[in-house]
Amino acid sequence: MQTIQLNTKSRPSTVFCGKGALFLRGKDVFVVTDSNVYRLYKELIAEKFAGGVCVVPAGERHKNRNTLFKILDSMLEARLHRSSVVVALGGGVVGDMAGFTAALYMRGTRLIQIPTTLLAQVDSSVGGKTAIDYRGVKNVLGAFYQPERVYCDPLFFNTLPPREIKCGLGEIIKTGVLDAVVGDKIRQNADKLRDLGFLHELAADCVRFKARVVEQDETERGGLRKCLNMGHTTGHALELLYGRRSHGEYVLIGMWLESYIAEGEGVCSHEYAEEVRKTVALAEPRIPRFASPEECIRFALLDKKNEEKDKISFILPKARGEYAEYSLSAERFAEYLKLLQENRA
Amino acid sequence: MQTIQLNTKSRPSTVFCGKGALFLRGKDVFVVTDSNVYRLYKELIAEKFAGGVCVVPAGERHKNRNTLFKILDSMLEARLHRSSVVVALGGGVVGDMAGFTAALYMRGTRLIQIPTTLLAQVDSSVGGKTAIDYRGVKNVLGAFYQPERVYCDPLFFNTLPPREIKCGLGEIIKTGVLDAVVGDKIRQNADKLRDLGFLHELAADCVRFKARVVEQDETERGGLRKCLNMGHTTGHALELLYGRRSHGEYVLIGMWLESYIAEGEGVCSHEYAEEVRKTVALAEPRIPRFASPEECIRFALLDKKNEEKDKISFILPKARGEYAEYSLSAERFAEYLKLLQENRA
Repeated sequence: MQTIQLNTKSRPSTVFCGKGALFLRGKDVFVVTDSNVYRLYKELIAEKFAGGVCVVPAGERHKNRNTLFKILDSMLEARLHRSSVVVALGGGVVGDMAGFTAALYMRGTRLIQIPTTLLAQVDSSVGGKTAIDYRGVKNVLGAFYQPERVYCDPLFFNTLPPREIKCGLGEIIKTGVLDAVVGDKIRQNADKLRDLGFLHELAADCVRFKARVVEQDETERGGLRKCLNMGHTTGHALELLYGRRSHGEYVLIGMWLESYIAEGEGVCSHEYAEEVRKTVALAEPRIPRFASPEECIRFALLDKKNEEKDKISFILPKARGEYAEYSLSAERFAEYLKLLQENRA
Repeated sequence: MQTIQLNTKSRPSTVFCGKGALFLRGKDVFVVTDSNVYRLYKELIAEKFAGGVCVVPAGERHKNRNTLFKILDSMLEARLHRSSVVVALGGGVVGDMAGFTAALYMRGTRLIQIPTTLLAQVDSSVGGKTAIDYRGVKNVLGAFYQPERVYCDPLFFNTLPPREIKCGLGEIIKTGVLDAVVGDKIRQNADKLRDLGFLHELAADCVRFKARVVEQDETERGGLRKCLNMGHTTGHALELLYGRRSHGEYVLIGMWLESYIAEGEGVCSHEYAEEVRKTVALAEPRIPRFASPEECIRFALLDKKNEEKDKISFILPKARGEYAEYSLSAERFAEYLKLLQENRA
C-alpha cells in the first residue's frame, strides 16, 4: 500500500492506494452511494459503517440539483452535525455529489472519499473538485473541498464493467501525455493496459502527479491546475452533445482531436502530435465521427475555462511532459472540426 | 476612511470603512441586490455598474433555495465566467445569498460586498460566511467564501428605517461584550447610540475586532470564531419561532436571556451578568415574553454549533472581554426559560 500526502492551504488530505487500503470503519460514518454500488456492496457497507446510508440513482444524468437536495435532506434527517463524517462511496458522480453536499452542509462537514471505479481512483476522488451539472452545463455549480482521506482500494475492481476500465484509462492516458514519467511507463507497457494490477499501479502514479499539481494551484487560479483539463474542452462538449460514451472515452476522443489543433496551430510538431494520437489509440483505437460541429461548438463555448467572449480555451500538448494553454475563436474551432470530418469521410 | 485588512488562508480581503468608501465602479460588474435597495439606489447602480443586475425579493424569508437558484440562473444568462465580479449590494440577506452564489458558480467567481445596512456593515459582510436557510434551519447550507473587498459606506444610512439601526446595534452590543475596548466605548457614549456618525465609527471598531477573530479561525474549527455567536443560540431559536423582529433584536434578547444562564451556571458573577443586561438595555430596554419554551428548545437543538445529542451549545459572557463555550442539556435550558417566564409574570 502507498500513502500519498496532498497538502493544500485549505486542508491536508491523505490518499491510501493499494490492496487493503480500505481499513476504515466507523459507527458514526454516514455513507452516500449509488444504486449500483449499493446492490454490490450492501454487506460491506453494513459491516463497516453504521451512521446511515443515502442511496442515489446511478448515472451521470442524476448529477443534478434534485439529487443534491435529496442527499442534503437525508443528511438533515440523520441529524448530522459539523463534525460528522460523510463518506462518498462510488464513482466520479457519487464523489462529486457527496463531496459537494459535504462542502455545503453547515458550511462543511468532514469528508472521506472511497472511489470504487478506476476513473475515480485515478482522478476524480483526489484534489477536492466537487460539482453538479446544471442547465446543460457540466460542473457549473460546485466547490473546491478537500477530503480528509481517500481510500483507493482495488477490491472494487472485480465488479467493474469493461467500459469503466476504458473510462479510467482515459484519465491515465491524459496523465501520461502531461507527465513524461507516466507517459514512458504507459508506452513501455502497452500490452498491460487491460491488466487491472498494472492499472492500479499506474493509478497511484497518476494520483502522485495530480497531488503535486493541486498542491501548487488548489483552486485553479494560478493556471497550473488547468493542465488537468487536457482533452476536456472537446471531451466535455461531445459528452454533453452525445452522452453515450463514458467521460474517459470522451477525454480520449478530445485529446485525439485537440492533437490536430495543437499541430495546426504550431503548438507542437507533427511528430509529437502523432505520438499523442498513438498513445490515445492504445486505449481508444476507433475515433467516432461527430455529427454536428455547430452543436459541439455551442457546448464548448459554455466551458468554465473560457474567459473571453466567443473564444474557446484549450490545454494543448506541446512536447513530452509539456503543455500550453491556448485560446481559439469559435470559427477557427469549427474549421478544425469540419476538416477532420471531411478527411475521415 | 479606514482600511482594514483581513488575511485568511483562502484569500486576502480588504474592508474600506467611512465616507467615500464606495469608490468602486466597473463595466463588467454583476450586481445582486433586493427590491428595496434597487428602488432606492437604481440610479447609483446604473451609474456605477454595467455588467447586469439581479433583483431578488427583499426579506429574510426569501433567503432560501428558490432565490439562490434564481440568482444562479441570472448569472448563467449573463454568461458570467470564473473571473467575473459579483457585487452583493444590500443587507445581510443579500450578502449571504449573493456571496453563496459567488462561491458556487463555477466553483467560485470574484466577490465584492457592498453592505447597505448597519448590521451588514458591522458584521455580516465581513468574514466570508454565506448561507441560505433550508427546511426550517437557519444558515444550514452555505460556504465560507471571503469577498475580495468590502465597501462600508455610510451613504446608505440616510434611507435606513429605525428598525434597521436597532438591528445593527444588536451586533455592536455583542461585540462590546466580547471586546473590552468596544465595550468601554459603548458604555462611555451611551447617549450617542442613535447617532449614525458615532455608530459608523463603532462599526469600524467592530470590523477590526471581527477581522482579528476570523484571521485566526476562518472556518470556525479552532473554536475562536464561535465567540461571535454570543446571544445567537437563543436569538436564532426565537427568530425561527417568531420571526417578527430583526436578527439584531433577537441577538439582544438572546444575550439578555443567556446572561441569566451564565450567572446560574457560575460562568460569570451576578455583577457582571447585570452589567451585560444593562449594556443590552441600552439598545433594547424591553425584553418580550416567550410564549412557548418547548418550541424554542426544539429550534435551539437544530443549531449548527451543537455537537452532542440533546445538548445545546452556548457562548456565555465570563468577564469583560472574556467568554466561555458552554453546553447545556435541553432540560436544563427549559428550566431557565420557565424560570425567567415565571419571574416576569
